[in-house]
Amino acid sequence: MTADTTRLDPSRDPTLDPARRSWVESADDAETSFPIQNLPLGVFRRAGSAETFRIGTAIGREILDLAGAARSGMLGAAGAEVTEALQAPALNALAALGPAAWSRLRAATGDLLSTGNARLRDDRTARSSLVVPQDAAEFDVPMRIGDYTDFYCSIHHATNVGSMFRPDNPLMPNWKHLPVGYHGRASSIVISGRPIVRPRGQVCPVDGEPPIDAPSRLLDYELEVGAFVGPGNPLGSRLTAAEAEAHIFGLCLVNDWSARDVQKWEYQPLGPFNAKNFATTVSPWIVTMEALRPFRCPLTARAADDPEPLPYLRHADGAASSAGVDITLEVLIASRAMRAQGMAPMLVSRGSFRDMWWSFSQMLAHHTSTGCNLRPGDLLGSGTVSGADAGSRGCLLERTWRGTEPLTLPDGSARTFLADGDEVIMRGFCRRDGWVTIGFGACRGEIIGPS
Amino acid sequence: MTADTTRLDPSRDPTLDPARRSWVESADDAETSFPIQNLPLGVFRRAGSAETFRIGTAIGREILDLAGAARSGMLGAAGAEVTEALQAPALNALAALGPAAWSRLRAATGDLLSTGNARLRDDRTARSSLVVPQDAAEFDVPMRIGDYTDFYCSIHHATNVGSMFRPDNPLMPNWKHLPVGYHGRASSIVISGRPIVRPRGQVCPVDGEPPIDAPSRLLDYELEVGAFVGPGNPLGSRLTAAEAEAHIFGLCLVNDWSARDVQKWEYQPLGPFNAKNFATTVSPWIVTMEALRPFRCPLTARAADDPEPLPYLRHADGAASSAGVDITLEVLIASRAMRAQGMAPMLVSRGSFRDMWWSFSQMLAHHTSTGCNLRPGDLLGSGTVSGADAGSRGCLLERTWRGTEPLTLPDGSARTFLADGDEVIMRGFCRRDGWVTIGFGACRGEIIGPS
Repeated sequence: MTADTTRLDPSRDPTLDPARRSWVESADDAETSFPIQNLPLGVFRRAGSAETFRIGTAIGREILDLAGAARSGMLGAAGAEVTEALQAPALNALAALGPAAWSRLRAATGDLLSTGNARLRDDRTARSSLVVPQDAAEFDVPMRIGDYTDFYCSIHHATNVGSMFRPDNPLMPNWKHLPVGYHGRASSIVISGRPIVRPRGQVCPVDGEPPIDAPSRLLDYELEVGAFVGPGNPLGSRLTAAEAEAHIFGLCLVNDWSARDVQKWEYQPLGPFNAKNFATTVSPWIVTMEALRPFRCPLTARAADDPEPLPYLRHADGAASSAGVDITLEVLIASRAMRAQGMAPMLVSRGSFRDMWWSFSQMLAHHTSTGCNLRPGDLLGSGTVSGADAGSRGCLLERTWRGTEPLTLPDGSARTFLADGDEVIMRGFCRRDGWVTIGFGACRGEIIGPS
Repeated sequence: MTADTTRLDPSRDPTLDPARRSWVESADDAETSFPIQNLPLGVFRRAGSAETFRIGTAIGREILDLAGAARSGMLGAAGAEVTEALQAPALNALAALGPAAWSRLRAATGDLLSTGNARLRDDRTARSSLVVPQDAAEFDVPMRIGDYTDFYCSIHHATNVGSMFRPDNPLMPNWKHLPVGYHGRASSIVISGRPIVRPRGQVCPVDGEPPIDAPSRLLDYELEVGAFVGPGNPLGSRLTAAEAEAHIFGLCLVNDWSARDVQKWEYQPLGPFNAKNFATTVSPWIVTMEALRPFRCPLTARAADDPEPLPYLRHADGAASSAGVDITLEVLIASRAMRAQGMAPMLVSRGSFRDMWWSFSQMLAHHTSTGCNLRPGDLLGSGTVSGADAGSRGCLLERTWRGTEPLTLPDGSARTFLADGDEVIMRGFCRRDGWVTIGFGACRGEIIGPS
């Protein structure tokens, strides 16, 4: 690990002090994903209520209602424009304000929640109004996502999948020169926990025979990391990779559900369409780039003799050593029978986001390279995160090698692709000696049969 | 022409009476695109003003402010929900209301503008407020477009382009079984008239050599027709082609600008991305499906021995004879030198939208076939509209056959692809003996050099 620790000086930035603690006791639990050093942002309401969704931050097992805290003047140090942005039912306005405003909010929130700050800690009435247990909350997609773009930036994934579909030509000539991406569907992005209806679709089970309209038999997940865009860029302008970092608001987990049989039949020559547009699940919490600073690292997959990127895709001087983020990523599956028998979900894969070949800064820069305008709240997906080992492959297509190496679940059943009743659970967390854990929470979805 | 004239009975629906006239004199001009039988919908304000954009309809050379007319109680017959929907700065709310509401608005608007109706005709004050010359107006994109999808539904276009890029395999095996489409970029959709900055981008001029970052040299237009979605469908549900017609609000012209050199290098394996996402131009007026009824026709490109579509892609009984729309489509180019010399734009191609292979109902049905939710205001592009003749090919890639057959403009210059200063003008109109012309107006854009 070569993260730049020299810049993580808690005497200058108390939000990066690993010893800092909160008066929310569950935030000090060694197992929590949400210590006071995290402060991820999301949109919630009390479960089953008709409240409008509002902006909050996770702290231990609780949520602090940031909209309400700001209205009560408890986040005044963040400034008036932050207070106003926090009143929206989504994070777009805050994302648009940029890194200085995000830092002010992080500092003010951390201060309000710190052990020594009595203002909310000792105000029982305010606490009962502004602090809501996560267990008692429901979440919405945290941004109004104008456009969703999905990339293909793991060389392990691209090589694995390419070798299945194009054995003579697994990695296209362009792959190491640009972050390959395509436009996804924004309307069908759903929040973690929403059931996913197994899609029907047009598939061609026998090459050369006519296609049929049938439920997908090769339903898959794709483990991805998502980046939400902060300030956008005007149409006709471009951002370089060196400039792009300041335009990334934060990261979440993404499940880019994929119907492989639909994909195989439809995808040439214009790419995936119905195979992906039936649902994409995002996790509720956006972990900010500031919270992730201690876990920045080089991208591991690039080799010394790989081509140098064109100038617009180069990181700022010295920034290549922190182009990646060391997020441990896990996929677990719990079948309906496992849940009925009280069995724990089975770990299917574990990898790290540091194993990508292209960074989000490079994806964002390439996206704007022809002048395409990004808007606050746009979502970029990294593409399936796979590592070099079989145990780190981020989708079933790879994990079961196109169904030739089935997994056996604890209930005794075999899986090549997903069955009805399977719940897919993605988790992400950052760990490092001497630091507290920064977690993403879960990105979940259960497959339900076609109606 | 085999349009179903039996259902076009003006005694039952006066909006379809070709003899009907308006007190707006320019609406009776034989050359107008906007007689009282058209009543297309758009969003406008007085040019150069700081007014908010509002909904209006084109009538002759004027615009009737429908938001203001509704507020003044002049469109009461359309109903309260239509009156409310007309107060928005975009047409999404009206689109969501569905065909019965659209019909009521059309009838009330036609009535208000009819020769015999004195209410607005004789109210000078109201007319000066509610009737604005088109020449004095500026326009906005008429919908908040949540998602933009681009199809590839002209068999002539698909075969021409396929034969250039894949001579051994011009038409993929899936092409006659499903309307091939891909997700486009919503953020960069702009209104007619906005200049288009020539994109820079990553291109690979010499196969096998490293790519470069350079201004596109192969900049092209694509002539398309766009369909705006009316009522949407919930996530996880599907619409058949027979059901889809009621979900189409109306049509416009679309220029899907394309950087062919960027496209060639980037598009495998996930389809076009930066080659298209720098700009897409739409015309200001949405012509409703009701106004187009007299011009419905069969799709001409399908052959008797072509495969029968799967059930979800079949039109309603008897509706195949009206699956298409006979819209004459033209592309003209005016170079900077031509404009300086007062020369008229040169006609580059003329074709008809009836020459498509798949209908918008089929595109919409296929889009939802895996359960993808469409939302009111989503835009579907037909893909480049090309006919069988060289003179009807809807993009320069085809028109100049990949640059091998240059066009000569009236200023003496040759064109394979677009030059800086070229203005591309697309026009569409429907003509038929015994009927008035229904026009779309123009979809324009001038190429300006990279900044």
